[in-house]
Amino acid sequence: MGKVEVFPLEGIPEVRKGSDLAGLVLDGARRSGLRLAEGDVVVFKQKVVSKAEGRVVRLEEVRPSVRAKRLARAEGKDPRLMELILQESVRVVRRGHGVVITETRQGFVCANSGVDQSNVGRGLACLLPEDSDMSAQRLRKALESRSGLRLAVVVTDTFGRPWRNGQTDVAIGCSGIDPLVSYRGKADRFGYALRVTEPAVADEIAGAAELVMGKLERIPVAIVRGVRYSRGEAGAKALKMDPAKDLFR
Amino acid sequence: MGKVEVFPLEGIPEVRKGSDLAGLVLDGARRSGLRLAEGDVVVFKQKVVSKAEGRVVRLEEVRPSVRAKRLARAEGKDPRLMELILQESVRVVRRGHGVVITETRQGFVCANSGVDQSNVGRGLACLLPEDSDMSAQRLRKALESRSGLRLAVVVTDTFGRPWRNGQTDVAIGCSGIDPLVSYRGKADRFGYALRVTEPAVADEIAGAAELVMGKLERIPVAIVRGVRYSRGEAGAKALKMDPAKDLFR
Repeated sequence: MGKVEVFPLEGIPEVRKGSDLAGLVLDGARRSGLRLAEGDVVVFKQKVVSKAEGRVVRLEEVRPSVRAKRLARAEGKDPRLMELILQESVRVVRRGHGVVITETRQGFVCANSGVDQSNVGRGLACLLPEDSDMSAQRLRKALESRSGLRLAVVVTDTFGRPWRNGQTDVAIGCSGIDPLVSYRGKADRFGYALRVTEPAVADEIAGAAELVMGKLERIPVAIVRGVRYSRGEAGAKALKMDPAKDLFR
Repeated sequence: MGKVEVFPLEGIPEVRKGSDLAGLVLDGARRSGLRLAEGDVVVFKQKVVSKAEGRVVRLEEVRPSVRAKRLARAEGKDPRLMELILQESVRVVRRGHGVVITETRQGFVCANSGVDQSNVGRGLACLLPEDSDMSAQRLRKALESRSGLRLAVVVTDTFGRPWRNGQTDVAIGCSGIDPLVSYRGKADRFGYALRVTEPAVADEIAGAAELVMGKLERIPVAIVRGVRYSRGEAGAKALKMDPAKDLFR
């Protein structure tokens, strides 16, 4: 296998509703002397995708429900924020210690339904894209048609994990890449069958991209080069575990 | 931020009990023209560390307990393997669908206490290192003293995750690197405090390394270059969540 390289894309300006993200990436790459190459994976932080899609809400315009007020009091949160968390979710998975873990309408399990107040501005909250696989697909097609290259796109968010401190970036949307690599039916050199081995390559790419993005550096896009992946349109929804197999539902 | 590079270290020979892993890495790097550099993170798959430490068991020498036999029958597993899983654990967290999730004696929550039969040979099972932070520290010291460079070491294993399909490699041991980056007390450019933001950089490095290692390619070591990290000896044990804060205990 060859090496993998992860490049931060610096100099992306503030993204607003309607911003042409693909154009900003291609301009940014040109200005920074970073030439996109065939097969590159372009990784976007969810926040710029959400901002470009207008998924930013003014808290003063949110009217919290009775349930939102009750949960907000219990967990020490702003009731308007709690209202958004509930609107974006299909169920509350766990709560306590000021943390609310939900299953989002897209089917991801994460803190606060992915609703976040960092890096959006005072009095504002940012929601996840309506359908981050569709967002990834739109971005991939725009990048491909303007660059003439075959590319993949991964949209990432920062998720906590049960049992482990800290967070890692994971894929919440992808296009042009199969998010899972299947070794089913493959055997090691001793003949042992790798029955359950299925690396979540899109999540590992998301984490690798985070290493060059940071949380304060305004680097919302990274280019990951050299990963061997299968082209496919299963989307990050293929990472959602079937409830029937889920021991932690 | 600069780019991050991930290099596979090819040509590492079969590792046996007592193998000098640090020597194999330095020889392998020299032969493949890969020059280690100051600050590089050397990532080892758990399996080679375990093999070098003699943590390989012949299943025919394992005598399963009554409890192991019962659980093995319920989950369709080899009772001798189940015995090892129980011996390596302090509790069973969940089981079902042929999966047994335990908390290991080291305090990690994962499938099968990390006991694994792939890539070890027929009739054998590989256990996690007794103390993978100590393993990482020994490897770091050996690599540093022979190379004259300041380095970090991460020992990785492949873990599943609740709610998400597939697995990612995560850190089960580390040395010379703080596994978490704290943004506590830092604020975004709008003044919003990043209270809970704590990227698990050692886990993201582990996932990035997996991208060049694969599962069948016999690449048990990767070099990750260009990551900004803090030097520290908190160890991967700092990634274990305090049970009092754990919503999924």
